[in-house]
Amino acid sequence: MNLKIAVLPGDGIGPEVTLQAKKALYAIGVVYDHEFVFEDALMGAVAIDKTGNPLPEQTLNLCLNTDAVLFGAIGDPKYDNNPDAKVRPEQGLLKLRKELGLFANIRPIKPYKSLLDSSPLKREIIEGADFTIFRELTGGVYFGEKKLNDAGTIASDLCEYSEEEITRITHLAFKAAQNRRKKVTMVDKANVLETSRLWRKVVKNVSESYPDVALDFLFVDNAAMQIILNPKQFDVILTENLFGDILSDEASVITGSIGLLASASLGNKKALFEPIHGSYPQAKGKNIANPIASVLSAAMLLEHFGLHKEAKKVYEAVEKAIEYNVVTIDLKADSKFGTNEVGDFISNVI
Amino acid sequence: MNLKIAVLPGDGIGPEVTLQAKKALYAIGVVYDHEFVFEDALMGAVAIDKTGNPLPEQTLNLCLNTDAVLFGAIGDPKYDNNPDAKVRPEQGLLKLRKELGLFANIRPIKPYKSLLDSSPLKREIIEGADFTIFRELTGGVYFGEKKLNDAGTIASDLCEYSEEEITRITHLAFKAAQNRRKKVTMVDKANVLETSRLWRKVVKNVSESYPDVALDFLFVDNAAMQIILNPKQFDVILTENLFGDILSDEASVITGSIGLLASASLGNKKALFEPIHGSYPQAKGKNIANPIASVLSAAMLLEHFGLHKEAKKVYEAVEKAIEYNVVTIDLKADSKFGTNEVGDFISNVI
Ligand SMILES: CC(C)[C@H](C(=O)O)[C@@H](O)C(=O)O
Ligand SMILES: CC(C)[C@H](C(=O)O)[C@@H](O)C(=O)O
Repeated sequence: MNLKIAVLPGDGIGPEVTLQAKKALYAIGVVYDHEFVFEDALMGAVAIDKTGNPLPEQTLNLCLNTDAVLFGAIGDPKYDNNPDAKVRPEQGLLKLRKELGLFANIRPIKPYKSLLDSSPLKREIIEGADFTIFRELTGGVYFGEKKLNDAGTIASDLCEYSEEEITRITHLAFKAAQNRRKKVTMVDKANVLETSRLWRKVVKNVSESYPDVALDFLFVDNAAMQIILNPKQFDVILTENLFGDILSDEASVITGSIGLLASASLGNKKALFEPIHGSYPQAKGKNIANPIASVLSAAMLLEHFGLHKEAKKVYEAVEKAIEYNVVTIDLKADSKFGTNEVGDFISNVI
Repeated sequence: MNLKIAVLPGDGIGPEVTLQAKKALYAIGVVYDHEFVFEDALMGAVAIDKTGNPLPEQTLNLCLNTDAVLFGAIGDPKYDNNPDAKVRPEQGLLKLRKELGLFANIRPIKPYKSLLDSSPLKREIIEGADFTIFRELTGGVYFGEKKLNDAGTIASDLCEYSEEEITRITHLAFKAAQNRRKKVTMVDKANVLETSRLWRKVVKNVSESYPDVALDFLFVDNAAMQIILNPKQFDVILTENLFGDILSDEASVITGSIGLLASASLGNKKALFEPIHGSYPQAKGKNIANPIASVLSAAMLLEHFGLHKEAKKVYEAVEKAIEYNVVTIDLKADSKFGTNEVGDFISNVI
């Protein structure tokens, strides 16, 4: 197979972890005789520094004309702590999600057997947990109108959802559930929010086309608690953009490290793959960031193109790294291996 | 001291747990020679059933003319699963918060020594954790304009904040921190939301009047993770309404049961005290609900009126109940004690 892949390393640890994902894909290409052509482009704070724009035209065009996008991380403290900044790195990512129509962000959560003791949660709580979060990615409060009055004393963000936006991701979530344990849990705040009530209504309607899948509802406050109390109760969690952002970072504790979690962002045409962790600026350039989430994003990319054998190979290589303790310090405090060494190990095993 | 207390038992388990709080307050009154006069009133689904209004005029007037409000719980599944209901129980609570000007909801999180093994989190993670969440309670997306178009296909909720709303709770949070470990963590989503950027700016300004208190910032997704990874890092968490709702339910896992967590809602004049748990309709009338959160709300009420000795007595009685295993099944699966027995034990110890 020939694939043209746009690579957006982004900010902080983005470049160093993305490099390991590229190495893994390169190794897969050699072993299975595929041609993966990578083209790097700027996005985020680095793009602002060089071009003034967090998503330069050129980057967007590249992404629109490739088969898939591999993305690293975004964000820089110099913008986070400057409420007056007019241009921010995150705008690049949000715009890219919107322009590529990536309405569904899919985040699988499943602890590795050999890491069951690395979680802050007790082993008996997490052993056997296996769920996937379907987070809506191009709507809600992320994209609604933002206002600040002239005096700078009143601000607002609009959270908006349409039936159509809810319907399309709901179908994806139910289809995924059909291939899993056949349960969808919709998370919302329908006792307070109008948008949540619309979600509830639409999801209920769509669910009627999937009589083999059970549907239940949880308020987001309760869900944030249940994910920790009893993560095994979940199969597919379906939720809106902001709740999905919060719950998936929270759920990362089940696996022991956010450095292990990958995600796929899908739409009608394009697909983007990224670790769920952020740019972790304190670790930048120190060769300590965990590259596994990025490598697993590459595996999700392979799966997306039907390369299941190849994806499995990557998963196995990652499992081997974990089993042999070739991991970064987030997983083993006294580890001697860095980002590069873990990446090398994985691509060598492939 | 003479105190007139409005009691709003509300829905589900509300009445049975609130009864135990009243018993504890009554016992305190006898021992310390205070006169607490209780007056019950309707709010929530029960109020809708009887009057059509989740917060009847009479209830609101009572609350406006008492020294404090003791509240149980609100919510009923028959409304949760009916997106078309025009009147909902929660509107009663939200209206009451607004009318009483209860802009700060304060939720202390601290595990009991003898319950350190009841949490899904490992003992070493939670031992020593001790923080308080200051949740803004009368602004944000809870109170912004809600819209649904005529076709019922597009919904929106507006999240709005003003400098003034942010300033007043920020002062409370910093004052609390001065009497604690002198650290405030502001939780927001300033990389995406305009309201969060206003929060960040205002909180930074206010913090300059408290040079002895350290201030840091966390994005809400990261905070949801950090609360589980390392809860000991927090002293005072300051956040907006919806994030506070999610994070405080999540943080309840640190204590082993949400049935242990109380909260105080304060404003310029009035004060309301309530457990953070919900109406838990499945347990209603079964004498299995944990009354401790409600009893602890009563203790927070005593503290609010400067009755520190008395509050301490309640805390000690609760600790004794926990120590002697006189607890409900959420804390000890094979417990023989119910809501009433735990309440009796506590008021007898007092
Ligand atoms: C960087 C930020 C805008 C982003 C988000 O909130 O979506 C990130 O947290 C994520 O989850 O991908
Ligand atoms: C019942 C509901 C409206 C309420 C809220 O979201 O504020 C509850 O969850 C709480 O935390 O007090």
